[in-house]
Amino acid sequence: MGKNKPYIFEIEKIESILKERKPKKILIQIPDGLKKSFYNTLDVLKEKYGNVEFIISSDPAYGACFLAENEALNLNADLLVHVGHTEYYRPSFSNVVYVGAYSTLKPSTDMIRSLISYVKSKGIEKVGLSYVIQHKPIVNYVKNILEQESLRVLIGKKSGYVKYDGQIIGCDYSTAVKVNNYVDAHIVICGGYFHAIGLGLATMKPVIKLDPYTNSFEDISKTVKRYLSVRYAKIMRSLDAKKYGVIVGARKGQYRSELIKFLIKLIKSRGLEYELFSADILTIDVLRNIDRDDIDAYMVTSCPRLPIDDLGEFEKPVLTPGEAIMVLTGNLDKYRFPW
Amino acid sequence: MGKNKPYIFEIEKIESILKERKPKKILIQIPDGLKKSFYNTLDVLKEKYGNVEFIISSDPAYGACFLAENEALNLNADLLVHVGHTEYYRPSFSNVVYVGAYSTLKPSTDMIRSLISYVKSKGIEKVGLSYVIQHKPIVNYVKNILEQESLRVLIGKKSGYVKYDGQIIGCDYSTAVKVNNYVDAHIVICGGYFHAIGLGLATMKPVIKLDPYTNSFEDISKTVKRYLSVRYAKIMRSLDAKKYGVIVGARKGQYRSELIKFLIKLIKSRGLEYELFSADILTIDVLRNIDRDDIDAYMVTSCPRLPIDDLGEFEKPVLTPGEAIMVLTGNLDKYRFPW
Repeated sequence: MGKNKPYIFEIEKIESILKERKPKKILIQIPDGLKKSFYNTLDVLKEKYGNVEFIISSDPAYGACFLAENEALNLNADLLVHVGHTEYYRPSFSNVVYVGAYSTLKPSTDMIRSLISYVKSKGIEKVGLSYVIQHKPIVNYVKNILEQESLRVLIGKKSGYVKYDGQIIGCDYSTAVKVNNYVDAHIVICGGYFHAIGLGLATMKPVIKLDPYTNSFEDISKTVKRYLSVRYAKIMRSLDAKKYGVIVGARKGQYRSELIKFLIKLIKSRGLEYELFSADILTIDVLRNIDRDDIDAYMVTSCPRLPIDDLGEFEKPVLTPGEAIMVLTGNLDKYRFPW
Repeated sequence: MGKNKPYIFEIEKIESILKERKPKKILIQIPDGLKKSFYNTLDVLKEKYGNVEFIISSDPAYGACFLAENEALNLNADLLVHVGHTEYYRPSFSNVVYVGAYSTLKPSTDMIRSLISYVKSKGIEKVGLSYVIQHKPIVNYVKNILEQESLRVLIGKKSGYVKYDGQIIGCDYSTAVKVNNYVDAHIVICGGYFHAIGLGLATMKPVIKLDPYTNSFEDISKTVKRYLSVRYAKIMRSLDAKKYGVIVGARKGQYRSELIKFLIKLIKSRGLEYELFSADILTIDVLRNIDRDDIDAYMVTSCPRLPIDDLGEFEKPVLTPGEAIMVLTGNLDKYRFPW
């Protein structure tokens, strides 16, 4: 990986701050999947700025909601570099720079043309185009090919928690939702299934994933349906719950006080009980450690992906905020995701 | 467990604050092993103080060094209740109450007499007596029986990170070390092996564990020797290291800036290289995620127990602060623990 430079980091952003603000101690937070790719860049910085103390945070950095601002404060860092995500919330720690990590991979024209043949064979004429931030550099390249082959391509305006038109993140598909009524399907540029499945759950339209890592495409609509049926099973199992565990995010970027208040109000209005728990990194083991016998189901307000991606095997149903609202209001017809 | 009340919690401490300071939102941090025992107490509090919001933190609460003060701030809590440990450092968050959790278990007189026969058979006449905080209520009971059978019992004065005479914690055995020159062996009241092994490594004297949970005693001196030989193997494998990974604690109570400076100075004075990493909950998986090929060994400054208890299986040697100092100064004769 190292020599192929799979990611280009916006090192110039860090350097301009190093020159202007002259920080002495820098905490660097990088998603686990990018940590080792970043070490070459780190060595360049260390070589050029020998007096500066660079500390790599081992935090998993799931998103910019997970910003290590407490850690930066505790370590007396005068700059926090957050790599790989765009700003999600306004942190209390004032000296934060968000540094892009852009993939250098480019899907082949041939493969994209195969994708186009596939969607046309399905009668799809208008598509929404979205992407995760590391593939931003190739969005126009992909869009142009799609349009050359006379597909109508819509890219939703930025809003909510994202910074760029067409950008999606694990918990915010609002750019795609904006164009949802005008398209037959969504094409999303991303690796893995995480974002593509989220997009499917948020839009309920066919989703075709264009994967730069494997240079391939995949219609994941059936996978989304499978996920959806699992989610409805959790919802159904929660309908008789008498007492809920409400999980509150322990980090500022995941502490959603208005949402928590709203859910508690719904719980109380239905004459049900609840218990509040806070969590930083929430896993099945953490849930097992806090679980009370008298709790029938959990709702997670910190991150709507945890119930779906990490907590599905827990013995009791664990709901996203959207699912919790469905259960508590009794509006089960439309799957509500993520919030 | 619930009905037997294995632990008595100092609920009156919480109640007096509830009456005086009238907090509205309370974050409660409890070690994983005590969480479920605490829920009865929580229910009593919730029943009596219906207007107060109680949030149970899912934090593992390994010690008072791990105080969830950032979490309390992030959640706008006006009181942080830390259960099961005594104060370790002066936190920035001002409203913290340390609530004792005392075991109700009492080893039988017969069993303690068997222990006395055993130590006498070994020619031991003078013993140091120490304990972990949850067994504080039975210390005098045990001491009296030991003295009745004409053992000389020494309890070291409080110092360092502990609050009571004779108390030990995972990273501080100074009470026992104080009496070490005057005793033939140590008796420690605790469950499990964690504290007993630490005591052995810190004192290098025979350690007999008196376990209230199993109502039994065990001479763990051989186990300590086994641990010691593993530790020396790690030390030996680190002697040729060219580059170290230095792990810095991400929480205030585990961020030891003076120790870090001292180790870096030693590293530099020997012409070696290093890389700084910060960690909150440090596991082997976390180490694997941050590991660089060019790092030969790690030193952990956050918690001296992690290398011994949690990171022994990591592919590269991981040293405690004391071991790091041994390696960097070349003073290998005396095992230095914990700091």
